[in-house]
Amino acid sequence: WGWGWESAHPDDAECTAMGALLPGTLARPLPVPRVADLGIEAPAVQAPPSLARLISTDPADRAAHAMGKAYRDVARALRGRPGRIPDLVAFPTRESEVTDLLDWAGGHGVAVVPFGGGSSVVGGVEYRGDRHRAVLSLDLTRMDRVLEVESAGRAARIQAGTLGPGLENQLRPHGLTLRHFPQSFEFSTLGGWLATRAGGHYATGRTHIDDFVQSMRVVTPAGTSESWRLPASGAGPSPDRLFLGSEGTLGIITEAWVRLQARPVHKASASLAFTDFGAALEAVRALAQSDLAPANCRLLDSGEAALAGAAQDGSAVLVLGFESADAPVDSRLAQAVDLARSHGGRYEPSGAGAPADEAVRAWRSAFLRMPYLRDGLARMGAVAETFETAATWDRVPALVEDVRST
Amino acid sequence: WGWGWESAHPDDAECTAMGALLPGTLARPLPVPRVADLGIEAPAVQAPPSLARLISTDPADRAAHAMGKAYRDVARALRGRPGRIPDLVAFPTRESEVTDLLDWAGGHGVAVVPFGGGSSVVGGVEYRGDRHRAVLSLDLTRMDRVLEVESAGRAARIQAGTLGPGLENQLRPHGLTLRHFPQSFEFSTLGGWLATRAGGHYATGRTHIDDFVQSMRVVTPAGTSESWRLPASGAGPSPDRLFLGSEGTLGIITEAWVRLQARPVHKASASLAFTDFGAALEAVRALAQSDLAPANCRLLDSGEAALAGAAQDGSAVLVLGFESADAPVDSRLAQAVDLARSHGGRYEPSGAGAPADEAVRAWRSAFLRMPYLRDGLARMGAVAETFETAATWDRVPALVEDVRST
Repeated sequence: WGWGWESAHPDDAECTAMGALLPGTLARPLPVPRVADLGIEAPAVQAPPSLARLISTDPADRAAHAMGKAYRDVARALRGRPGRIPDLVAFPTRESEVTDLLDWAGGHGVAVVPFGGGSSVVGGVEYRGDRHRAVLSLDLTRMDRVLEVESAGRAARIQAGTLGPGLENQLRPHGLTLRHFPQSFEFSTLGGWLATRAGGHYATGRTHIDDFVQSMRVVTPAGTSESWRLPASGAGPSPDRLFLGSEGTLGIITEAWVRLQARPVHKASASLAFTDFGAALEAVRALAQSDLAPANCRLLDSGEAALAGAAQDGSAVLVLGFESADAPVDSRLAQAVDLARSHGGRYEPSGAGAPADEAVRAWRSAFLRMPYLRDGLARMGAVAETFETAATWDRVPALVEDVRST
Repeated sequence: WGWGWESAHPDDAECTAMGALLPGTLARPLPVPRVADLGIEAPAVQAPPSLARLISTDPADRAAHAMGKAYRDVARALRGRPGRIPDLVAFPTRESEVTDLLDWAGGHGVAVVPFGGGSSVVGGVEYRGDRHRAVLSLDLTRMDRVLEVESAGRAARIQAGTLGPGLENQLRPHGLTLRHFPQSFEFSTLGGWLATRAGGHYATGRTHIDDFVQSMRVVTPAGTSESWRLPASGAGPSPDRLFLGSEGTLGIITEAWVRLQARPVHKASASLAFTDFGAALEAVRALAQSDLAPANCRLLDSGEAALAGAAQDGSAVLVLGFESADAPVDSRLAQAVDLARSHGGRYEPSGAGAPADEAVRAWRSAFLRMPYLRDGLARMGAVAETFETAATWDRVPALVEDVRST
């Protein structure tokens, strides 16, 4: 249940301590849910002998594939009321096995739900229908290899079940990176990023998975679709764009050619404090609309800055970072700092390990720790969740105001 | 008939002179086709009085809307065998009129073909079916206004029938530009760019129309579709991407919100000569994969360089250009020139008006003149056409070899 590594979950004492900071929470944390308490029934179907070696009916596997990682899923797990538990979990190791599984399921009234890292927060890994006699969760994480790397063109053919760290580890010896880092990076797969149109955490330039696709293979109930691998095309609507964001409803993505980048070797970062949040917003707009292209350009309001340890005096903090594989980025950082200062930012440069860098590191560590804390707070009966939105610049001040006043 | 402004067409003497350079062409140019020779019949339907003021049945209008501007279209025009001539040409001035026209046509078995600038080279403005009693060409060029400009967010709501020059002229007072310049810029519309996924002529960064769309309105036979105007989204497949590249088959795009940029004020360009075309290709790859982001990075082989007057000694010529609205680009140009020189490029810097700039200007003027010359050559019975393709870097040398040897 819950996010990430079990060993990183806050323990009972930590949960109780967090709860004590918030009024109205429980006195003691809800117990960690156990598979044995779910009363999972025997599967409604049995796979044929030819597929049996790919399939698990272990209740722990089945429970782990019942839900994603939304707050709603955490709450349901804590209440012992998970979604529909899949009857079978399949772990194919190659595309032909995916096809065999789909063929069998299609012929036997069994619903198939593709499953990557399982970090969906929109119910994407759950079966919610009632027209099927059984549900098979198709886990792709054993299809986890980089199959081909084309160094000259900076591209690779990669299996869809490859998790973020495994993907980057296999590309590293080539000096290349996909450079796509969603918050769920450790626990999500290339196929999942494609099926959900994942956003990366860079501030400008290519960061969404959409930007990196050259072509993909998708096994559908009607056959296997493979788009033509082209560096660019304007000939009709792009077939890849049909599958991008399809959440697994149209087929199972088995592999994709993706664009890569040289690994950045030049990095520089800085943070600036702002007394006036509105002025900080204007600084961010100026930076976003310049051609400086920061890799990181993140504005923490006074509350988040305090929480992350980036500022304790009520200032908002703007975190800036630049990266390049080609050339030093200090002059771009200096220009960005000047631009931010011209909008009222206060910059106190200092050596390594000093507050500026600390703010960046503190924020990053808080960012990655967030989902674990959310789950700990859920055990105390508190709702804490991350929300994402996008607004045009003219509406941002009103949006900020509305969020603060509700 | 043919491309662009009539006054820019090569005259009979120029055509004859061009033909004399090529073996096997005609002795005299084919005559310029005349509408009167087409024997256009009366329209098969009549529009109702309520729509009559929007509709032309003038044979010249009807002939002008029968075909696009592919070589095939030019050849058919010269042979007096155009495609199906539309019965009616409608010139709506607002979206409600588009809806009225579609409603009437849908109820009377009349096919509707949207028409922007008419520069399609894939038959996109032609009716090719046989199930309709009549054809209505729906010309959107009277819907040619920028309706709203949001300066802070650098975006504008623009009617789909706006031609390139009119669009930029209306944005100029705001200091903004769409900065989308397909070769057909003068004779194509925003709606046409969207419906055909037009590519701009910049070498890196945002240049395709896909990159600039925030949302669009499309009148379809089933109702009007309007996508939510969001600066970014990863929620399901993008509806805009369904219409991008749809070539008018799904509905009539009436307006769109598009992203704009500040008008570039800093510009610098240079050209380098290469003896070895393969080395020049490597230079282009290094530039494309760097983060220098040239606005122009175009490699002319020795034949094209000679034709454009950029080099007469058999060298290939690499044309580089940089632009920015923010800051001088000389240092980026200098870095790019260094990179190209490290791959064997020869750079002879010189003052304004000297050969380096001349090469850029000569190439640009040849680029814009090309379609007119194509049509002049067609009158001499010669086939000349531009082809576009895209290849991954590993296949480029073989592609170049194959094209040269055929």
